[in-house]
Amino acid sequence: MISLQEDLKDIRKLSRIITTIENRQKGYKDILRKCFYHSGKSKIIGITGPPGAGKSTLTSSLIGVLREEGSSVAVLAIDPSSSFSGGAILGDRIRMLDYSLDEKVYIRSAATRGAMGGLCVAASDIITVLDAAGFDYILVETVGVGQDEIDVVKETDTVLLVLVPGLGDDIQALKAGIMEIADIFVVNKSDREGSDNLVREIEYILSLAEHGKKWNTPIIKTVASKNEGIKELSIQIKKHFDFICSNSLILQKRKERFSLKFKRLVLEGLETKIKNGPLKGEEEEKLLESFIKKEQDPYTAAEEIVESFILEELQ
Amino acid sequence: MISLQEDLKDIRKLSRIITTIENRQKGYKDILRKCFYHSGKSKIIGITGPPGAGKSTLTSSLIGVLREEGSSVAVLAIDPSSSFSGGAILGDRIRMLDYSLDEKVYIRSAATRGAMGGLCVAASDIITVLDAAGFDYILVETVGVGQDEIDVVKETDTVLLVLVPGLGDDIQALKAGIMEIADIFVVNKSDREGSDNLVREIEYILSLAEHGKKWNTPIIKTVASKNEGIKELSIQIKKHFDFICSNSLILQKRKERFSLKFKRLVLEGLETKIKNGPLKGEEEEKLLESFIKKEQDPYTAAEEIVESFILEELQ
Repeated sequence: MISLQEDLKDIRKLSRIITTIENRQKGYKDILRKCFYHSGKSKIIGITGPPGAGKSTLTSSLIGVLREEGSSVAVLAIDPSSSFSGGAILGDRIRMLDYSLDEKVYIRSAATRGAMGGLCVAASDIITVLDAAGFDYILVETVGVGQDEIDVVKETDTVLLVLVPGLGDDIQALKAGIMEIADIFVVNKSDREGSDNLVREIEYILSLAEHGKKWNTPIIKTVASKNEGIKELSIQIKKHFDFICSNSLILQKRKERFSLKFKRLVLEGLETKIKNGPLKGEEEEKLLESFIKKEQDPYTAAEEIVESFILEELQ
Repeated sequence: MISLQEDLKDIRKLSRIITTIENRQKGYKDILRKCFYHSGKSKIIGITGPPGAGKSTLTSSLIGVLREEGSSVAVLAIDPSSSFSGGAILGDRIRMLDYSLDEKVYIRSAATRGAMGGLCVAASDIITVLDAAGFDYILVETVGVGQDEIDVVKETDTVLLVLVPGLGDDIQALKAGIMEIADIFVVNKSDREGSDNLVREIEYILSLAEHGKKWNTPIIKTVASKNEGIKELSIQIKKHFDFICSNSLILQKRKERFSLKFKRLVLEGLETKIKNGPLKGEEEEKLLESFIKKEQDPYTAAEEIVESFILEELQ
């Protein structure tokens, strides 16, 4: 264990460990088990928002402010696992090369996994590793805007929703799902026309949703490319963290996180079992033949198998 | 059953049925069971490619050519299930309003479902319904480029990979995963500079991969906005369909489709069971508490539960 703890401090070894986790290579579970017992100390910040909102630049500026304070920072960028890996994603990352010589900064991309069940498992596990590695902050930035990424962000302590004027026409569409998980709104590129309107719109939507809520969701105007508003943002992040610590919210959040993680792990395990199980080979061939011949339908057959799983044994 | 068959012919009733399927509303499984036994006649065409390749315009033009021949066409557009529903997606759809009065054309968007396990189940099921409804062609168009959408396209009979000059710099990145599932390459916007280069690049990559393959993957140049090359494309689509019918490939493809569908259904069922099962409530609370207290880790606990599932009962 001591050696793993040491390895996690070494950026290059950390990278290799994360690759092991990501690819589900031999020994990954032992690493995760050990990491789990050393996790729980990092502040985990989710950064989400539509494409073009400047999330990467914001992340980059935020690293700067947090580093000035002496905090160590890990960034996990969640890329949609795409066969079409776009140039833009890479371009955004390049900005972060500013920190490539800083040992207290670690930047990593993770593809969301498209495999059924295995979805997001890796991202959630990488967070556990980074947490065990002792980073003060873990910034989880979504590149894409899919449900997968939002699901990952839901598991963070503090969620920043980054919006920009101009894209804001669609703020009504944002209401479903994402508005309620935002702990801090960031109006980035706020030197652009329309930023006051966007702030008012957010305020209005918040006013409809907020009664009864104890946390007063702040709206921070930033110009990330000029480092404007980033200090204020970091103050609000700390405020929010203090807030969730001062009541039982952090416990609740962690329970939810563990609950999601656990269910995903169970599903991942079952998926592997189904893939490698008796359904492969001759039995499966028979089943598929029966579908082809329309002797039975996959809906009924799947139902029967699900029924046959004995769940009473769950402890 | 007669009434369901009739309902499927009525576009408005069909829409309602698909909504029932998509939302997993009461009775959805009975509908699917019935549809399954009436499915298997449609030609299912997948249309995928990076954003900006003009997939929607191509789909729209293709509908035109297929309609001229008297074929009925259903379009299923797979949208990434996003809280940030972009205006672009809607804009693309609007072009298809040309066909809004044509009863032999049905256009539907389906969100890929982000829920673990439930992923893509709905899309695959909607295809079954459209198939049972008797459409000659089902065009499955991906809007996003996530793994989810690619997984859906994998289940079609013929996969069109749409590329455009200019975006083509990243063709190397495409090789992994997507190149091998393409049955027809479409170089769209081929009046743009660089289209010959793109064709050559594709030819080169195909030359590396194709030996031993019986199907000679064609590369079709189109300008979808001007309906150029679309007739040729439709001919190649038919050729490919004849090809897979003339050997056992279509059977193999259907088996693969059923296999994926079946496994997803099993996972979806298990997911529901896990969500509603004994893990909810007091038991789950105990488990989560034990994680919080670091008395045990979720990796080991999940493993134990997966082990406890009795798979020997699988028939």
